[in-house]
Amino acid sequence: MTYIPHWLEKRYDLTPEKTAIQLKDRTKIPFSKLRQDSLEMAGKLNQIGISQNDHVALLSKNSYEMVTIIHAITYLQATVVLLNTRLTANELLYQYEDSESSFFLYQDDLEEKGTEIQKKHPDQMYSIQTIKQQQSKSFAIPEEMNLEDTFTIIYTSGTTGFPKGVQLTYGNHYWSAASSALNLGLYENDRWLAMLPLFHVSGLSILVRSLLYGMPVHLHESFNLEEAFREITEEGVTIASVVTIMLEQMVDQLGHRSIPDTLRCFLLGGGPAPKPLLEKCKSKDIPVFQSYGMTETASQIVTLSSQDALRKLGSAGKPLFPAQLRIQQEDEGSNRPHETGEIMVKGPMVTKGYYKREEANRKSFDQNWLKTGDLGYLDEDGYLYVVDRRKDLIISGGENVYPAEVESVLKEINEVQDAGVVGTEDDKWGQVPVAFVVGRENQKMDKDRIMEYAGTKLASYKVPKEIYFVDTLPRNASKKLLRSTLLEWTKGIHNHDES
Amino acid sequence: MTYIPHWLEKRYDLTPEKTAIQLKDRTKIPFSKLRQDSLEMAGKLNQIGISQNDHVALLSKNSYEMVTIIHAITYLQATVVLLNTRLTANELLYQYEDSESSFFLYQDDLEEKGTEIQKKHPDQMYSIQTIKQQQSKSFAIPEEMNLEDTFTIIYTSGTTGFPKGVQLTYGNHYWSAASSALNLGLYENDRWLAMLPLFHVSGLSILVRSLLYGMPVHLHESFNLEEAFREITEEGVTIASVVTIMLEQMVDQLGHRSIPDTLRCFLLGGGPAPKPLLEKCKSKDIPVFQSYGMTETASQIVTLSSQDALRKLGSAGKPLFPAQLRIQQEDEGSNRPHETGEIMVKGPMVTKGYYKREEANRKSFDQNWLKTGDLGYLDEDGYLYVVDRRKDLIISGGENVYPAEVESVLKEINEVQDAGVVGTEDDKWGQVPVAFVVGRENQKMDKDRIMEYAGTKLASYKVPKEIYFVDTLPRNASKKLLRSTLLEWTKGIHNHDES
Repeated sequence: MTYIPHWLEKRYDLTPEKTAIQLKDRTKIPFSKLRQDSLEMAGKLNQIGISQNDHVALLSKNSYEMVTIIHAITYLQATVVLLNTRLTANELLYQYEDSESSFFLYQDDLEEKGTEIQKKHPDQMYSIQTIKQQQSKSFAIPEEMNLEDTFTIIYTSGTTGFPKGVQLTYGNHYWSAASSALNLGLYENDRWLAMLPLFHVSGLSILVRSLLYGMPVHLHESFNLEEAFREITEEGVTIASVVTIMLEQMVDQLGHRSIPDTLRCFLLGGGPAPKPLLEKCKSKDIPVFQSYGMTETASQIVTLSSQDALRKLGSAGKPLFPAQLRIQQEDEGSNRPHETGEIMVKGPMVTKGYYKREEANRKSFDQNWLKTGDLGYLDEDGYLYVVDRRKDLIISGGENVYPAEVESVLKEINEVQDAGVVGTEDDKWGQVPVAFVVGRENQKMDKDRIMEYAGTKLASYKVPKEIYFVDTLPRNASKKLLRSTLLEWTKGIHNHDES
Repeated sequence: MTYIPHWLEKRYDLTPEKTAIQLKDRTKIPFSKLRQDSLEMAGKLNQIGISQNDHVALLSKNSYEMVTIIHAITYLQATVVLLNTRLTANELLYQYEDSESSFFLYQDDLEEKGTEIQKKHPDQMYSIQTIKQQQSKSFAIPEEMNLEDTFTIIYTSGTTGFPKGVQLTYGNHYWSAASSALNLGLYENDRWLAMLPLFHVSGLSILVRSLLYGMPVHLHESFNLEEAFREITEEGVTIASVVTIMLEQMVDQLGHRSIPDTLRCFLLGGGPAPKPLLEKCKSKDIPVFQSYGMTETASQIVTLSSQDALRKLGSAGKPLFPAQLRIQQEDEGSNRPHETGEIMVKGPMVTKGYYKREEANRKSFDQNWLKTGDLGYLDEDGYLYVVDRRKDLIISGGENVYPAEVESVLKEINEVQDAGVVGTEDDKWGQVPVAFVVGRENQKMDKDRIMEYAGTKLASYKVPKEIYFVDTLPRNASKKLLRSTLLEWTKGIHNHDES
């Protein structure tokens, strides 16, 4: 077992006066204040009863308070369960109970999201305002962190339709942050723009890097085009984590403006980027580093380095220094160039497994190799090209939509006998889910009612944007849904619409 | 257990064409060639019988071949025992046998150093030229390294007079290199000057950093003032590992020349630096980063960062991110500012222990804290000031001399009844050892004979530069030698000389 000093204590010891967080209004919060505020928050959380090994669910949009709560939970040696603010009350209840959380902390204006948890666990609900009014109860500041302890649980769905809690240890996060520096370099003037949600690992990982590097994070509630430009052109941001939709908007709206040299990296995650976008960036000298990663890998595990960004356009790059990558081909072989197969990854930043999911863990791991379910190939130089995320995965505005999860909700509706969901291209969101629905005999079907029901059960980005009624769904001999046929159907409909 | 990809394979995969090693004659060797040559060397070493878990002693001055042998040994998953070229044949035999090595590889012009090993293990001797003439025997290239496997054994003495083999794992070296980057930053144009011996951890660690960072090492056989200037002013070296004597010579000889901005760090190890030197560097804008470390910590474990280099002149800084530091004070307390005590360190770069030295390991560790035996204090901001290396340690030109080891050799001489060794100041070497010797009754004593004998047993830097005959040595009630009194005697002699 490896121990390191508590990471915020350590950073406070090293560079107390350096800026830890810079807010939208340009307020600069040094590590000394971040530490003080996090310790105070920890005292208040301790007052409401949070202590070592508790699972604490947190529902919040990005804010400075959210950052202090996350650090406070590390001081109490508890585990934070990060909840997506776009989920419905039902989805949140599921994740809350599945993670065996015993505290639900929520941003005050998200109170209605907690209604289902409220019904069943009324004494476990705490708004952030309520917490702030607590007295502080003293506790012993831990000197060390055990790298094998679980820091975060973040839910991700899968082919089963049931979201699973990805456990990430302090070690997973540490190795991820330290390895990213080996790849991207580490400059004295680095400042990282965080406009992605902290409840996703893509946002959260920026906070950990800030601690290891002693680097300011420019924190925003969400992506805003003009704010992003301002941060880059006026505030000296050197690295920005982005998903395709953000980068597209920035490039489209660049106009006469240019990206200054101080911005040395757009770290692009969240699914394969369209080649025309990458080419446009290349022609405008915009430094885009494509990457590949997932919650299970504590953010990027494969990244294209600066030397290769132009030469290997469209590639996600090579695995970070301590990580490994393999393409498992169907005939049990692996790594033949230009032959597509399942992407397998391994390394000290990879999760030890899903919380309480023995069977899923057995299926997802092969001797410490994580079977991602995503498809890709290596070129002759060993660079990864991601062909498709998990065969059926829909990525809509950077959020993952798992068709099986949507289908399972649709099938709860009385009138629905069968349902199949696939993604179609969308100018704004990249992809959106659409559903093919088979009704029960003699039952009247109503599109609006289906959508309304789905909307109560599913985050809005998961609700099908279109419902098509059909007599039967294409299934193979073993009754497996043939999504490729559904995809062809959507193209047929699309062509029909245009004609 | 944590596995990472084999580090040279990984670096080759990431940046095959980048320069790994630049030689004195400006030859640039890319990682692809370093890998190829190391693999070829591994095949030859395999041919002579080296295989997994073997201990392989290596005696060589810095050279490209030495680098390939070190990497070749990692390919064979053996352990390299790095021998100091300044040791005598007897000292080498001791380390060879104590480390349970079964191969002795030596640079051809160091053959005479192997005479004692030759006598006892004639079939285990291989000159590098002999090895190069071998056929290659194929072996499976390991894909991974287990961070808990031992990579190196390097000997260091102690208070007992018997050198002990410090085991350093791949993990120790990995954490050291990755943590150094978090402290010093990592720039695309970094190039590290290595003029310190690779058989010391201070030199060897540069090779590991090169692999993790994808960074060129400018490798020299030894320190040369003019070559150092040339590397810094013409070849773009950005970081140079130095000991005090090297830095002093450079500053003294700087003359009208200046150190260009490209050199961003002189990493200064090997004992506390004289304050006048640090002040001179400060006045000339020479970026000196003082550090504290030892073989047991896989090089620096405490380093003064750039922000603090000027503000905390004379301090060795703060422990690297994953490392911890404590000052153990005599009354069982610790860490009171400005109060001197024993320096204790902990972290994933600290050795798991001395090879086959259970008792020394019990004495040297306190729940994973290494008791360094060195003395220091923290200031009010927690910065380390090293007061004195291990009470009796003499540092001569960057090499450690342990008085107990020298005394034990002197006492082997028939005519010598007792001996005490201390260090005196020396303009060239910083310190040199001198001996006080008590003769046996009625035995004639001869300075030259004593020195000659010591010279056959001890590396020349350990041989006392002066021998003083005395009637008795100052010892306390429990017969412990009072070195402080000997030190006063040396000052008396010195004053007497001048008067």
